[in-house]
Amino acid sequence: MVPLSKRLFAECFGTFWLVFGGCGSAVLAAAFPDVGIGLLGVALAFGLTVLTMAFSIGHISGCHLNPAVTIGLWAGGRFPARDIAPYIVVQLVGAVIAAALLLFIASGQPGYELAPNGLAVNGYGPHSPGGYALSSGLAIEVVLTFGFLSVILGATDRRAPAGFAPIAIGLALTLIHLISIPVTNTSVNPARSTGPALLVGGLALHQLWLFWVAPVIGALAAGGVYRWLANEPLPPHVTGEHL
Amino acid sequence: MVPLSKRLFAECFGTFWLVFGGCGSAVLAAAFPDVGIGLLGVALAFGLTVLTMAFSIGHISGCHLNPAVTIGLWAGGRFPARDIAPYIVVQLVGAVIAAALLLFIASGQPGYELAPNGLAVNGYGPHSPGGYALSSGLAIEVVLTFGFLSVILGATDRRAPAGFAPIAIGLALTLIHLISIPVTNTSVNPARSTGPALLVGGLALHQLWLFWVAPVIGALAAGGVYRWLANEPLPPHVTGEHL
Amino acid sequence: MVPLSKRLFAECFGTFWLVFGGCGSAVLAAAFPDVGIGLLGVALAFGLTVLTMAFSIGHISGCHLNPAVTIGLWAGGRFPARDIAPYIVVQLVGAVIAAALLLFIASGQPGYELAPNGLAVNGYGPHSPGGYALSSGLAIEVVLTFGFLSVILGATDRRAPAGFAPIAIGLALTLIHLISIPVTNTSVNPARSTGPALLVGGLALHQLWLFWVAPVIGALAAGGVYRWLANEPLPPHVTGEHL
Amino acid sequence: MVPLSKRLFAECFGTFWLVFGGCGSAVLAAAFPDVGIGLLGVALAFGLTVLTMAFSIGHISGCHLNPAVTIGLWAGGRFPARDIAPYIVVQLVGAVIAAALLLFIASGQPGYELAPNGLAVNGYGPHSPGGYALSSGLAIEVVLTFGFLSVILGATDRRAPAGFAPIAIGLALTLIHLISIPVTNTSVNPARSTGPALLVGGLALHQLWLFWVAPVIGALAAGGVYRWLANEPLPPHVTGEHL
Repeated sequence: MVPLSKRLFAECFGTFWLVFGGCGSAVLAAAFPDVGIGLLGVALAFGLTVLTMAFSIGHISGCHLNPAVTIGLWAGGRFPARDIAPYIVVQLVGAVIAAALLLFIASGQPGYELAPNGLAVNGYGPHSPGGYALSSGLAIEVVLTFGFLSVILGATDRRAPAGFAPIAIGLALTLIHLISIPVTNTSVNPARSTGPALLVGGLALHQLWLFWVAPVIGALAAGGVYRWLANEPLPPHVTGEHL
Repeated sequence: MVPLSKRLFAECFGTFWLVFGGCGSAVLAAAFPDVGIGLLGVALAFGLTVLTMAFSIGHISGCHLNPAVTIGLWAGGRFPARDIAPYIVVQLVGAVIAAALLLFIASGQPGYELAPNGLAVNGYGPHSPGGYALSSGLAIEVVLTFGFLSVILGATDRRAPAGFAPIAIGLALTLIHLISIPVTNTSVNPARSTGPALLVGGLALHQLWLFWVAPVIGALAAGGVYRWLANEPLPPHVTGEHL
Repeated sequence: MVPLSKRLFAECFGTFWLVFGGCGSAVLAAAFPDVGIGLLGVALAFGLTVLTMAFSIGHISGCHLNPAVTIGLWAGGRFPARDIAPYIVVQLVGAVIAAALLLFIASGQPGYELAPNGLAVNGYGPHSPGGYALSSGLAIEVVLTFGFLSVILGATDRRAPAGFAPIAIGLALTLIHLISIPVTNTSVNPARSTGPALLVGGLALHQLWLFWVAPVIGALAAGGVYRWLANEPLPPHVTGEHL
Repeated sequence: MVPLSKRLFAECFGTFWLVFGGCGSAVLAAAFPDVGIGLLGVALAFGLTVLTMAFSIGHISGCHLNPAVTIGLWAGGRFPARDIAPYIVVQLVGAVIAAALLLFIASGQPGYELAPNGLAVNGYGPHSPGGYALSSGLAIEVVLTFGFLSVILGATDRRAPAGFAPIAIGLALTLIHLISIPVTNTSVNPARSTGPALLVGGLALHQLWLFWVAPVIGALAAGGVYRWLANEPLPPHVTGEHL
């Protein structure tokens, strides 16, 4: 087992990479005149942050990069309860550092001003890119996090083909963004929502609760379903942590 | 062997994922102003629903998510006849639930109205995105389903490299959409066509027959060709189900 | 060894898939109003035709789908001379059928007329999408085919990681299209050029020579370099066919 | 061990491929009218040059294609010091040849003129595509090169799944471009910056220092962190070369 300090460093840097890369592509490149990468490029960027880190640090920390993933893996009987809190803390630290660095870089462009929906914050109603209501945002965040955790738990199951999980998981995050950026700017990840919201403040911070509640509900449900589907003794590296 | 109840749950959820993700990206994100994902993004989304689910539930149910795939695998001597009907039933259930949830979420946008070609329904003539005639729609759906099943049967053959089939199959569906969205909005999957058509009704329902007939013809043909190409004893998990 | 008849069927269908999918995406979807897939979508489609077929029929015929690939593999000491001619013949047959079917489908759109540069033909000067001169077209086709064959020979070498070659080769074709569609509409494949040119005729047919000469030069050079780089006894399945 | 001459040939050609493919897609196809590939297509092209070459020549030379990668692998204890200089020299040669060939091909378009920011040179301030300041460019190049090397070192670690490293590394380069083209036109690779700058001259050459300094700082830092994270005896092919 890799020492906790190294696992926490990996999670912190990995979550930094996710938020800096995903939100960075949205802030810096999505709407670049004429040749901008658009929502498709942002969706790809978010997915590739996870794909690349999962190959790089998956064998160190498991590469969660997301409190909902940490909680969902615990609910699925695949992660010990005692490590949940430290994982979530360092994920938040990485996300805040990423948002701060992104703000520093973005402000190097002449005329830059931080908007109330800047730094790719998540939101609903007036902060939904397409003006979608809270009910739409709640539904889509729960369902997509449920699907995300289902892919994570299934693709890392010992019966799935070995080695491919980072591809499945990273591209699942791309898929999720392809569907839902217009609705909530896509979270499925409380850390990714918290970093930018803390720096932007205001309405973004006020709406942040949704991007903790909905992903955690979806993750807990996916963990429960997985345990029914898999129906077998827990893998040996889980040391007695059951629901 | 995984119990049938769990296999059916997996097929139902997987088909939900395909229809919600693929049609959802089309309805919510394709034509988003300025930075929409376009047909390329929709093509990628459809493919990634299959790629991600195949890694997640492939070892549970085989991850067909499509009546034409189920029928084509049977025609190729790779799936038992007795499971065809239950698989197709739950695929349809998943597709209808997905279309209903998508309608709920889409209607959370101010001013939303369900159009006669809403929810990404398939169609020809007046319901073809590019106005293509029935003959074009029939030809392209037969040929592309033939190719889709050829990729599925070939990439899951025991002589193909192990583990990669979800990538080949998912990206084949992306390719198919890159070619044919303008012609029929791309089906190659009767369940994907049925879910939205049932909710939209009208002409979409009237034209639904094509998206059962054409994919099934293509799938049966591909199954027959595969049996000639592979020319070998059936794999042991097929319990006496031949054409 | 798979019988020649089945290998030739696979090559014929695979080349059909490449031309129908690649040129089809260009003709039907590239310039679709507002949400068209653009050159990026076409580049992806061409690559995915090869990726998907290589997983599906790679173990049957090797999945060349391209006379330049067949010749380059022979030049690299990896394919027997006696099979070159039949492979190329069936590749051409598949390409012509694909172009004809594409014309049938495209003509199902009201007002369709076959243009002198229709069906995604290759060309230079007046038939180059960006108006590039013959010298540019010749240089880029030679260089990109050299690179394409280098990827094919290297990624299928016994020292490369097993199973990944279809990904490397398919995405190499995507890369090649990302660079060169504006110059020649991208060939690197005499069969892909011949199918549409035969149906369109005129200048497209007049310029076809370039898309045989340049890819074959690039392929022969890559085969020779590979033999120097690899510098080892030929693999056992090559039955005495050397340069 | 492959002889140094063949390793150097592979590095030279591979770097040619990276610069010709990446910068070529930017120069020839990014802003093509109506259907251009945009920054998303350029990001994909850069990544695919590395992905395809890594599968093709990874077993020959390691496929660095980048002085920062060579230096970072040395800093991580994975590459011998004595080969650093020859690797960097041939990388630069390949990059210059690529830029020259690209200039030849681009000039085959009527009315072509080499602009002061032509050939996809890197830059800051007036040469930043989005007008970003030097401080933004410095920060983003250091951070992204740090992340790039982290992915490279992690994904090629013996505990990571075997065979997938080219996918992780290539797509990491795509991700990096999705974020940072607007800021510096994206370097993270001194050779990629040097080739075009030498041919364009002027301000591009004047600003070239940044694209040596920042990537090397990021690479050295990533190498040091990797050694702490991995914390284990060096692999046997490293012959006593430590920091």
